Amino acid sequence: MLPRITTTWPIRKYTDGAASLREDDIASEYPLTVELDGEEFATIVCSPTDLKELAIGFLASEGIIREAVDLKELRIDEERGYVYAELHRPQSTGKDDYSKRFIGSCCGKSRQFYFRSDARTARTSMSRLTVSPAQCMALMRLLQHSSAEFQLTGGVHNAALCTRDALIAVRTDIGRHNALDKLFGYALQQRLPVADKIIAFSGRLSSEVVLKAAKIGVGILLSKSAPTDLALKLADDLGITCVGFIRGREMNVYTHGERIVEP
Amino acid sequence: MLPRITTTWPIRKYTDGAASLREDDIASEYPLTVELDGEEFATIVCSPTDLKELAIGFLASEGIIREAVDLKELRIDEERGYVYAELHRPQSTGKDDYSKRFIGSCCGKSRQFYFRSDARTARTSMSRLTVSPAQCMALMRLLQHSSAEFQLTGGVHNAALCTRDALIAVRTDIGRHNALDKLFGYALQQRLPVADKIIAFSGRLSSEVVLKAAKIGVGILLSKSAPTDLALKLADDLGITCVGFIRGREMNVYTHGERIVEP
Repeated sequence: MLPRITTTWPIRKYTDGAASLREDDIASEYPLTVELDGEEFATIVCSPTDLKELAIGFLASEGIIREAVDLKELRIDEERGYVYAELHRPQSTGKDDYSKRFIGSCCGKSRQFYFRSDARTARTSMSRLTVSPAQCMALMRLLQHSSAEFQLTGGVHNAALCTRDALIAVRTDIGRHNALDKLFGYALQQRLPVADKIIAFSGRLSSEVVLKAAKIGVGILLSKSAPTDLALKLADDLGITCVGFIRGREMNVYTHGERIVEP
Repeated sequence: MLPRITTTWPIRKYTDGAASLREDDIASEYPLTVELDGEEFATIVCSPTDLKELAIGFLASEGIIREAVDLKELRIDEERGYVYAELHRPQSTGKDDYSKRFIGSCCGKSRQFYFRSDARTARTSMSRLTVSPAQCMALMRLLQHSSAEFQLTGGVHNAALCTRDALIAVRTDIGRHNALDKLFGYALQQRLPVADKIIAFSGRLSSEVVLKAAKIGVGILLSKSAPTDLALKLADDLGITCVGFIRGREMNVYTHGERIVEP
């Protein structure tokens, strides 16, 4: 049986100089080892939910699969913390390539920062979706309201796949990338078109988050937090609209502002 | 020349329905590839500061070196984003081992969650240092005041190596682990005793942060954020005192409370 997404821990709480004992809610961290065609491929430390989606999304992010149907089998052993994946067409994963930087000259000014596996799977967004500032703020509010665990433990990130007006799916994880991989896995399993969707994210927009959005295939990325410069260079290059610091009635548009339009 | 730790980006800012153009400060993200004895070993995406410390701390964390003097040479090419490290005694790094989970039975109830490279380098803390709640809160205040970049961009993590009363060194990075690796590199370069030191950290206490603290060798870990359960199990096992949610005059003691004593 899987552990719960949060668990309790006995703590000594200090408030204004006085100490008291109590039970505190904390986020669970669950190590999941992915075995691919009989070989150990990677271990992901994640929140113990949506493991199947996580595994599918992770394998797609890594460029091992393109669609959920590329998998012949996906079996999860919750006790051991293993997922056994089998491909219809086993391939050499070329592990050594994964950490190597891809220094290409073909595709744009920032592309030299990509890793080789990213360059294979990150796509330039051709999304023609537009959204209004009020819709961006409303989606971020919806995301925050949907995230009970975060309010409980302060320890997890939330990511949602959205239309302009609604959250389609919300996924939660202690790891920012895992939350996004879970969404990716969900979209692949549902065979959901993504070019007309938006991702709303509780965490910082780093280069890896932007690359993940490009791999998933969305054109608009919303966050209540800050972006980094590399994230913005990549977003600029990959055609992704980055909106950050969405708080209350404020927000900042950093890249591809053409998708943010007044209604 | 290295990029600055923050840079500017032109944004469209929406406030209460009105849009304005301005320059915004954002955190820089810098990819640094570590070449070890002529072979590409890993690429770290980091804040562009303290690269030498980062490289030393990273190699020590990975179990490649034990002391700074194990390195024959460490040369940084800031333009290319490469660090060239040479060991006095080149070794097979056994890359394949690094991602494999170490399932041991020897050392304690949580040790099965360790990775093999972690099990080699994480030490159980024998620190006899004690600290008062007021000192914990004061150190966290000092850390927050020292972190101008965070206040500017909201995009970086800060970690400090501390005595009971003062910050010895503060390191900043967009990556939580990088900030800690920079401190590790600093301590190794300075040959600083660490068992009587404290680490104050701006980010969440995840399993990786606790493992890193154990590798560095400190016994007390302070954070303004939440811990995860795996982090606490490991801290329990490794003899590390975890104090979280240090905010104003409140804090929570999660593990090894014997080091938290009234003055």
